Amino acid sequence: MIKVGVVGGTGYTGVELLRLLAAHGEVEVVAITSRAEAGVKVAEHFPSLRGRYDLAFSDPAKAPLKGCDCVFFATPNGVAMSQVKPILEAGARVVDFSADFRLKDRAVWEKWYKVAHAAPELFADAVYGLPEINRERIRKARLVANPGCYATAVQLSLLPLVETDHVDHRHLIADGKSGVSGAGRKTEVELLFSEAADNFKAYAVKGHRHHPEIVESLANLEGAGGRELGLTFVPHLVPMVRGILTTVYARITKDTDFQALFEKRYAREPFVDVLPPGTQPETRWVRGTNQCRIAVHRPLDGDTLVVLAVEDNLVKGAAGQAVQNMNLMFGFPETKGLAELAVVP
Amino acid sequence: MIKVGVVGGTGYTGVELLRLLAAHGEVEVVAITSRAEAGVKVAEHFPSLRGRYDLAFSDPAKAPLKGCDCVFFATPNGVAMSQVKPILEAGARVVDFSADFRLKDRAVWEKWYKVAHAAPELFADAVYGLPEINRERIRKARLVANPGCYATAVQLSLLPLVETDHVDHRHLIADGKSGVSGAGRKTEVELLFSEAADNFKAYAVKGHRHHPEIVESLANLEGAGGRELGLTFVPHLVPMVRGILTTVYARITKDTDFQALFEKRYAREPFVDVLPPGTQPETRWVRGTNQCRIAVHRPLDGDTLVVLAVEDNLVKGAAGQAVQNMNLMFGFPETKGLAELAVVP
Amino acid sequence: MIKVGVVGGTGYTGVELLRLLAAHGEVEVVAITSRAEAGVKVAEHFPSLRGRYDLAFSDPAKAPLKGCDCVFFATPNGVAMSQVKPILEAGARVVDFSADFRLKDRAVWEKWYKVAHAAPELFADAVYGLPEINRERIRKARLVANPGCYATAVQLSLLPLVETDHVDHRHLIADGKSGVSGAGRKTEVELLFSEAADNFKAYAVKGHRHHPEIVESLANLEGAGGRELGLTFVPHLVPMVRGILTTVYARITKDTDFQALFEKRYAREPFVDVLPPGTQPETRWVRGTNQCRIAVHRPLDGDTLVVLAVEDNLVKGAAGQAVQNMNLMFGFPETKGLAELAVVP
Amino acid sequence: MIKVGVVGGTGYTGVELLRLLAAHGEVEVVAITSRAEAGVKVAEHFPSLRGRYDLAFSDPAKAPLKGCDCVFFATPNGVAMSQVKPILEAGARVVDFSADFRLKDRAVWEKWYKVAHAAPELFADAVYGLPEINRERIRKARLVANPGCYATAVQLSLLPLVETDHVDHRHLIADGKSGVSGAGRKTEVELLFSEAADNFKAYAVKGHRHHPEIVESLANLEGAGGRELGLTFVPHLVPMVRGILTTVYARITKDTDFQALFEKRYAREPFVDVLPPGTQPETRWVRGTNQCRIAVHRPLDGDTLVVLAVEDNLVKGAAGQAVQNMNLMFGFPETKGLAELAVVP
Repeated sequence: MIKVGVVGGTGYTGVELLRLLAAHGEVEVVAITSRAEAGVKVAEHFPSLRGRYDLAFSDPAKAPLKGCDCVFFATPNGVAMSQVKPILEAGARVVDFSADFRLKDRAVWEKWYKVAHAAPELFADAVYGLPEINRERIRKARLVANPGCYATAVQLSLLPLVETDHVDHRHLIADGKSGVSGAGRKTEVELLFSEAADNFKAYAVKGHRHHPEIVESLANLEGAGGRELGLTFVPHLVPMVRGILTTVYARITKDTDFQALFEKRYAREPFVDVLPPGTQPETRWVRGTNQCRIAVHRPLDGDTLVVLAVEDNLVKGAAGQAVQNMNLMFGFPETKGLAELAVVP
Repeated sequence: MIKVGVVGGTGYTGVELLRLLAAHGEVEVVAITSRAEAGVKVAEHFPSLRGRYDLAFSDPAKAPLKGCDCVFFATPNGVAMSQVKPILEAGARVVDFSADFRLKDRAVWEKWYKVAHAAPELFADAVYGLPEINRERIRKARLVANPGCYATAVQLSLLPLVETDHVDHRHLIADGKSGVSGAGRKTEVELLFSEAADNFKAYAVKGHRHHPEIVESLANLEGAGGRELGLTFVPHLVPMVRGILTTVYARITKDTDFQALFEKRYAREPFVDVLPPGTQPETRWVRGTNQCRIAVHRPLDGDTLVVLAVEDNLVKGAAGQAVQNMNLMFGFPETKGLAELAVVP
Repeated sequence: MIKVGVVGGTGYTGVELLRLLAAHGEVEVVAITSRAEAGVKVAEHFPSLRGRYDLAFSDPAKAPLKGCDCVFFATPNGVAMSQVKPILEAGARVVDFSADFRLKDRAVWEKWYKVAHAAPELFADAVYGLPEINRERIRKARLVANPGCYATAVQLSLLPLVETDHVDHRHLIADGKSGVSGAGRKTEVELLFSEAADNFKAYAVKGHRHHPEIVESLANLEGAGGRELGLTFVPHLVPMVRGILTTVYARITKDTDFQALFEKRYAREPFVDVLPPGTQPETRWVRGTNQCRIAVHRPLDGDTLVVLAVEDNLVKGAAGQAVQNMNLMFGFPETKGLAELAVVP
Repeated sequence: MIKVGVVGGTGYTGVELLRLLAAHGEVEVVAITSRAEAGVKVAEHFPSLRGRYDLAFSDPAKAPLKGCDCVFFATPNGVAMSQVKPILEAGARVVDFSADFRLKDRAVWEKWYKVAHAAPELFADAVYGLPEINRERIRKARLVANPGCYATAVQLSLLPLVETDHVDHRHLIADGKSGVSGAGRKTEVELLFSEAADNFKAYAVKGHRHHPEIVESLANLEGAGGRELGLTFVPHLVPMVRGILTTVYARITKDTDFQALFEKRYAREPFVDVLPPGTQPETRWVRGTNQCRIAVHRPLDGDTLVVLAVEDNLVKGAAGQAVQNMNLMFGFPETKGLAELAVVP
């Protein structure tokens, strides 16, 4: 049993994390912070947690985070980089949901996030928390940068391709589609029901913040051998609450059995499920679960490979992957607390 | 560990039951039947079950149902009444999701279901499976008739009122709203996405089949003392997948503390949650869970009581209540396998 | 051809009004105001208007509203009462979408809207803009208070009952269900897609602001003869963009042919469609149109009458009714510009 | 005023056509056929048409189609090819919504549609009804093959690129997303609300029937000069009723001002709206209208061009384009009856 703190528990990734931790069995949540809601019972804010959480939100300044074994930052970009240092120094280990420590190149980070980074000296320590790439490093990490939701699906779709030489690495295309919860619980006009329902659009076409994260992470792969990587990524907003589907297009340059390539790459991964040939995955198949399900297609037997991946943006794309990382960091079975089946329909 | 069979596992209540049973811990599912899908892997039909169910659907005639301890009939009306007898005689106990054994009055049953009943001799044995009324009888039952989804929410809203004398029992109104999954996985035009989405309507206004079930069950209450009961029930179709909210209106005839009345009635019920005064419950608060959450209101302090209840029609309204009944029948803790929190958002 | 101004054109009723006015044929829109968006092209803000509106939003202080024949206030409560007087004095006639002039009883108004009314001296002039009650007075009105969306559906459901003596007037129940656009384009958490989608709840159960409007309007009916009126009204939020369905319950005290009663009452109304017996109306049947469609039911032939009404909250519940009122005020055919069929599916 | 017949009026494109024709002003609908619904009032089947259509469905064998000036086939594939000949011989002109006459290559048609074609001798007469390509030929056509919904959006996105030499024509990618009404009013499990709502998936990944139509049509372009064309097209199902968005990716081989290229190509097209640079179009902007709105992007200023196009699959993708074709065939203004603004929100 470890002591866990949650910084910023009022958003969608926060409540999802609390849901997962309630079923984990080896963690005790000792603090959930929120400046705005300090003093309010967590189960009053999120009545879905009634009967399981008796805690109230606490002021971040007063919360016993330093006594925790593991602290999750379920906060917007910019919070963790300012607050994480004393917590690390007190001996807690940290999983950060935000983008603060996902990049190694400070200049790139500052270009995309448009502020000066508050703790670049931690870049070297931070481990990018995609277990399918960095499992061993995560086990020992003090500070894990939990990947973005699109970034997880796109990387899992591309890994077997980028580690080998069968497609044109310089002209990869990822067409992303996300449920609205991916944007968080922000009161912005475009996230209103009457704007997003019965509607479909692309957004951030000029360039999305998950782009540099994907490119840097894949370029740093040991198996990638310094090859140049070119990726066009266009995200779209789907009128559903949860779920991401990414459609990756790659031009085949050297034929192989792509189905076998993917199956072999992920044979021992507990949370990547390579589907049988011909399968067309649906986001609801993974709703509420930590699975990423992937299918490999070759339309009309042409020279374009199509990789479809589905995940729950709040689970494998956020809170579930964070718990998976915590499991690795603390020596629990990697699947601990993450065994639930999807709620279908 | 008990052996469990599921008759008719291709519908929504079927897949929900399989989801719940996978997490139960004390059951082994040994057969899932479907005439149409016999031989097909269950996890191929419902990919959300991949990795947890290796079984294929079996032909009902060949399935080892007689060797089961407990058999669930997740079938349409009319199936269980024809097939349940040999299974009961072989010693298995049965939970039937359909309406076949919910009424005691055969004439009423045949009037509403418009066929001759195939096994009226079992009426005496069948126990109506609402634990909040019949807990002790369920424990000993061989055949449990699992209540309808609306019937559960409406009865839990009315129980404290019908057992006491504070409202006009002859002019009760229940305005029901259900997600579309309540209609099952039937290929009917009105259940198509393009018909039901971005739309709202009432249905079965002339009379809904859950009406006689509610009236008979409440009239038979020991505490109801033979009082005449008048109920108008109008159901509506909500463009959401899961969830029921019922709004019950009752004219107050003798004042009391209705909040206290409800809290007292349900103080020891593990799956009825009387919410704090002023709460306006949402269906998503119980999505995927076996909870029924209830709030008691008195608009403008007038003489009309309003009781709001939410439940997941596929859980407390079907598969979850069935597992709760199984738990009672086999001496497991009543909440076993039913502890998950709602998936929110 | 009349000159029309629109105050507050950035919300949902505003854009709907602009859609309807574009097809009217007898109006020229000369000003659309918005403080926040002044200078921005209206068609840039609402690209659905591209090609039809070349105007930019203008600052309310500078807009040529006084030169208009008709000014619509598509603004939140509290705006029209402060700004309408000089416009009226300049000779323009006004249709106000807000609640500012819907009540005659200032004390009641101030109790519900919780501010002092800025122009109570205009109460006497203001005509409640429900043509089915006040057609002749609307024709001559300088200032029309356009009814609320719920208020329109509930009153049209109740009118034939309140004008006669066949039901218990003191215990009427209206269970309302509205699409999310009814709440306007406000950036509030509960209106976010991820909160409202795949979810259902009641709101304002304690008391909704349309309640006093309905009660006062019906009590003032000439035909109602000073009878006491008791109404319980509970609104619910439906995960759809547009549409209202109200389910009215009334206890029958003296039998009659209710279908005939409704058909006769609305025989000459162009925008109230009494449906054939047994019809269960759907909100999409009126999507985008000014129709209110009503069905009269008597479940199980009991003593409770059920009246179902559907309307588009943004059309008959707001902008369409406003155009209908304008047509009356300026002597156009009442249906002018309001002939479109519903967009189905 | 011309006489119009509609064969197969019970589906989504049928009811949409009837909605548009009701507002046209120059057509009289004299027959709407349906074998299954013969004798039923059209407005009873589609209550949204109440008050505007007094016709009943007639048996196709008895309907006065030969006396019509124009007959629309709003029927599934395979109907028009069997029935169109006598109607053409009687002098009526025909717009067929189905795929029966969209291809010129009979072998390709039979490969994709898996039946022998019943009237290949009409291939030479049939004109592919995309006015942006074939306007002059449509004016004179007796038989117009109305394009598919995806095919319209994808071709309008590709036309300026295929007619010029700035991108790699052999590796074009079109990622399509459609609302569920695109699949028609078929009672198939995957089209049920509870399957399609709150869900997202790709379908027909192996190859979609609009693929050969797009490729043949573009290859036959006069401006395309016989260049080889390679297209990968993957469609996806969006949980919304109406609307298509296609995201086209093309590798830039020779730089140019793509915005200007598109603006110039469509400068005189009444129903293609090239949006200002940077615009991210939404499907609701064209809901219920015949507009196709297109935006041209170049993410991160890289070498991949992204073209976004939105249309209403039932209007510009079906019934609206059919009316546009009829307008051309009968010498009406091309925009006649197609001027409505989108219903937003």
